[in-house]
Amino acid sequence: MSEYESWKPSRVRQLIREGKITEPTTGMCSGYAQGNLVVLPKELAYDFLLFCQRNPKSCPLLEVSDAGSRTFPVFGAGSDIAKDLPRYRVYEHGKMTGEYTDVSAFFEQSGQELVSFLIGCSFSFETDLLQAGIPVRQIEEGVNVPMYKTNIPCAAAGVFSGNMVVSMRPIPHHLVPAAVSITAGMPRVHGAPVQIGCPEAIGIVDLMHPDFGDRVTIHEGEVPVFWPCGVTPQNVVMNSKPPFVITHAPGHMFITDARNAELKL
Amino acid sequence: MSEYESWKPSRVRQLIREGKITEPTTGMCSGYAQGNLVVLPKELAYDFLLFCQRNPKSCPLLEVSDAGSRTFPVFGAGSDIAKDLPRYRVYEHGKMTGEYTDVSAFFEQSGQELVSFLIGCSFSFETDLLQAGIPVRQIEEGVNVPMYKTNIPCAAAGVFSGNMVVSMRPIPHHLVPAAVSITAGMPRVHGAPVQIGCPEAIGIVDLMHPDFGDRVTIHEGEVPVFWPCGVTPQNVVMNSKPPFVITHAPGHMFITDARNAELKL
Repeated sequence: MSEYESWKPSRVRQLIREGKITEPTTGMCSGYAQGNLVVLPKELAYDFLLFCQRNPKSCPLLEVSDAGSRTFPVFGAGSDIAKDLPRYRVYEHGKMTGEYTDVSAFFEQSGQELVSFLIGCSFSFETDLLQAGIPVRQIEEGVNVPMYKTNIPCAAAGVFSGNMVVSMRPIPHHLVPAAVSITAGMPRVHGAPVQIGCPEAIGIVDLMHPDFGDRVTIHEGEVPVFWPCGVTPQNVVMNSKPPFVITHAPGHMFITDARNAELKL
Repeated sequence: MSEYESWKPSRVRQLIREGKITEPTTGMCSGYAQGNLVVLPKELAYDFLLFCQRNPKSCPLLEVSDAGSRTFPVFGAGSDIAKDLPRYRVYEHGKMTGEYTDVSAFFEQSGQELVSFLIGCSFSFETDLLQAGIPVRQIEEGVNVPMYKTNIPCAAAGVFSGNMVVSMRPIPHHLVPAAVSITAGMPRVHGAPVQIGCPEAIGIVDLMHPDFGDRVTIHEGEVPVFWPCGVTPQNVVMNSKPPFVITHAPGHMFITDARNAELKL
């Protein structure tokens, strides 16, 4: 586990801000929720906010910054969005143009105000699955969760449209009801699965070749269970090729002040 | 009960559209959710959408129309927002300037595109309370639910800010846990209460003089329980005195195609 496992989020964010932590945030600040970041110019913010409202399962918004602000006052008191993640990606017209450990220059030099969106992540419900004795395969195998493009259309909003991306966890068949029940109780981090046991029904042809992340082993007696995935909003944003977007780099998340348990409220 | 109690929502909306139903929608289309309506010019829509995102308990958004559109495709297939409510109110700069049974002229003549917001209503959870044997006093007494201004600040967004408005239902003390549990399971229609038994803690000084609606009897052994109320967004919008707003007239709601039970998902 991370040496920062038992640290407070504000302290770890401070070390990240000072450039003293640059690695992925996995395992840091155990029990606290981590979130996905999407930063867009103000002119695209309404369409994206509406997209999230219409697709709450794949795009569960935790917090939206004020336009031009660099902080999440609720989920990260005193945070600096432009410095408190260990690694960022910048995309222009749908193409990645660079990775950065500090994007404050983009906030300062951008021709217009930026709006930052913090989106819930299924890592938050995996703690509860594990505590209930439900295996989480990609953690066991030390790889990234397998993710797949589906044929499930998201509700479009303005310039944003596209299909849902899902993550998959193989669950022993007798534990599937518990896995559904536990995750259904956490709608702010994607909630209940969208599909259980029939990948072809949502357009997935080969579980061993995920579109994102890594393949994992599916044991005899296990059922593939599919949850809406936070890659959906990033994917949809990229599809629309906006002039300018900042996101977190994979695994380099925003560590929030909210405990995972608080996301059940 | 209403003679339209067992009718389908689309049929009742059609009769309203034709001017054949003009009364309040209470009791119509039993089992189907009814929603509050707020219609704003596009230039205010981002701030209001953000306000709802930041205050989901008092402003649970069910659906947001496309700008310039007059329909809610998900919650009211084939609906005409400008004609399918029996009565509307128009406000200009914070003052009511008229009541109408058809606001299509405003949609057509407005200098800019309008955006319509459909907001969940606690009527949806009252059915479940009654079915669980929990009394709903204002229904027993045939009056409007008592509503109170509180000292609980909403999270501000752009031009919109203000305090939460709550509705109150007196609940027998041994049924309070059940009332909390049932309503907590329906976050899309305000969810769990914000206060139980201590009105003074949220700035309410006299239960017998509600700020909106009617007073109801509180029997011996009953506890006043307070839920976030859909009057909050209307109140907040009016506080900001926007140039132009359309809302439903009290009790004259949008009848949706969604069954109340679907709002638990």
